[in-house]
Amino acid sequence: MSPRITFYHAPNSRSGGTFSLLEELGVDYDLHLVNLKSGEQRQSAYRAINPMGKVPAIRHGEALITEQPAVFLYLADLYPEAGLAPAIDDPLRGPYLRWMVYYGSCFEPAIVDRSQQRDPAPPSTSPYGTWDDVLNTLALQLAKGPYLLGERFTAVDVLWGGALHWTTMFHLVPETPEIRAYIDRVITRPAMQRAAAKDAEFAAQQAA
Amino acid sequence: MSPRITFYHAPNSRSGGTFSLLEELGVDYDLHLVNLKSGEQRQSAYRAINPMGKVPAIRHGEALITEQPAVFLYLADLYPEAGLAPAIDDPLRGPYLRWMVYYGSCFEPAIVDRSQQRDPAPPSTSPYGTWDDVLNTLALQLAKGPYLLGERFTAVDVLWGGALHWTTMFHLVPETPEIRAYIDRVITRPAMQRAAAKDAEFAAQQAA
Ligand SMILES: N[C@@H](CCC(=O)N[C@@H](CS)C(=O)NCC(=O)O)C(=O)O
Ligand SMILES: N[C@@H](CCC(=O)N[C@@H](CS)C(=O)NCC(=O)O)C(=O)O
Repeated sequence: MSPRITFYHAPNSRSGGTFSLLEELGVDYDLHLVNLKSGEQRQSAYRAINPMGKVPAIRHGEALITEQPAVFLYLADLYPEAGLAPAIDDPLRGPYLRWMVYYGSCFEPAIVDRSQQRDPAPPSTSPYGTWDDVLNTLALQLAKGPYLLGERFTAVDVLWGGALHWTTMFHLVPETPEIRAYIDRVITRPAMQRAAAKDAEFAAQQAA
Repeated sequence: MSPRITFYHAPNSRSGGTFSLLEELGVDYDLHLVNLKSGEQRQSAYRAINPMGKVPAIRHGEALITEQPAVFLYLADLYPEAGLAPAIDDPLRGPYLRWMVYYGSCFEPAIVDRSQQRDPAPPSTSPYGTWDDVLNTLALQLAKGPYLLGERFTAVDVLWGGALHWTTMFHLVPETPEIRAYIDRVITRPAMQRAAAKDAEFAAQQAA
């Protein structure tokens, strides 16, 4: 039998996406809550898990996996019976990989620049071109709907539904009707709701 | 039979990694050279392939795949007989995904900030923390050697060997003895050398 997953998670943070994914996958795992406010992520015990001092991270046997899209790809392939990852020979596999990687390589850098109110690097240096490129590319894809890859709900929607939820809330991404409808389609799923409720409890515990 | 891959490539650019990977995989494909200098990447024909106006991109049947690490993951899994991707049940699979994604989510944003001589966002906002986090995390991993995942050469080395080659050349990454030795180990491989020679020819043709 495969060893259990340990998931390093901070409530109310970017690792909430992985928390939701594990709920969607319906699997058992060991949860290690990281206290970002006390600076646990920069102490040597956690640096041995992720030298970047970031959540999410998972340990599976000897393997350490960090970086949100990598953790998503790993977990969704590990539990194929949940059907959240198109298989390697599925025509959706390429777009699935593309949208996972695009999240970390383009969307997050664009959001960070925007939240810092700084211009992107010149378009041909910037890994994401311009902010409009990012929004237009996303809008084109969402127009295919109802999910990011079309008819099929996949792990990519857990990532993007959650990310668009918080980035529209913080007014970093404009809440167009299409984006709003997509977010609602994702976050109203029972597993997503359960994950959100549990995460709020953890956040309250850490604050207490 | 699976349809042929079309690869959209610009000589002397970030898509050179994919060009090398295809040479390492030893597969046949259709090459579409994109002329970045004439602005072909921003014209509507190419925007229909990648609305971001970026190379690399590949088309495989109906599927369009963009984003360097996604293209790498896709191609290396598509040709398992080349042995460049640890299989889904291989203990190296997680670290393999991690280092692919880390490249686009952390290393490139850090390099872009550095090339623009601008500070990263504050550490907990910055997707890569600090520049030192990025270099230390890489150094720790390379210390395991001889390849990024240890004994086994994988597609991740094609990506990182090439990237460290140009980033040390431009003095963006310090050329430590470990980094230099790693680069040499990768770029002296016969397939990497063949790819570099062919790419130089294409660049000369486009300049003519
Ligand atoms: N996030 C993209 C970035 C690719 C990229 O920036 N490619 C450059 C080539 S070095 C490009 O196409 N530049 C053309 C332009 O923006 O004008 C990836 O990882 O594939
Ligand atoms: N590139 C990382 C970024 C993760 C990240 O920045 N996580 C934040 C949580 S919102 C974190 O751990 N911050 C703690 C800190 O840097 O102090 C990924 O995609 O997983």
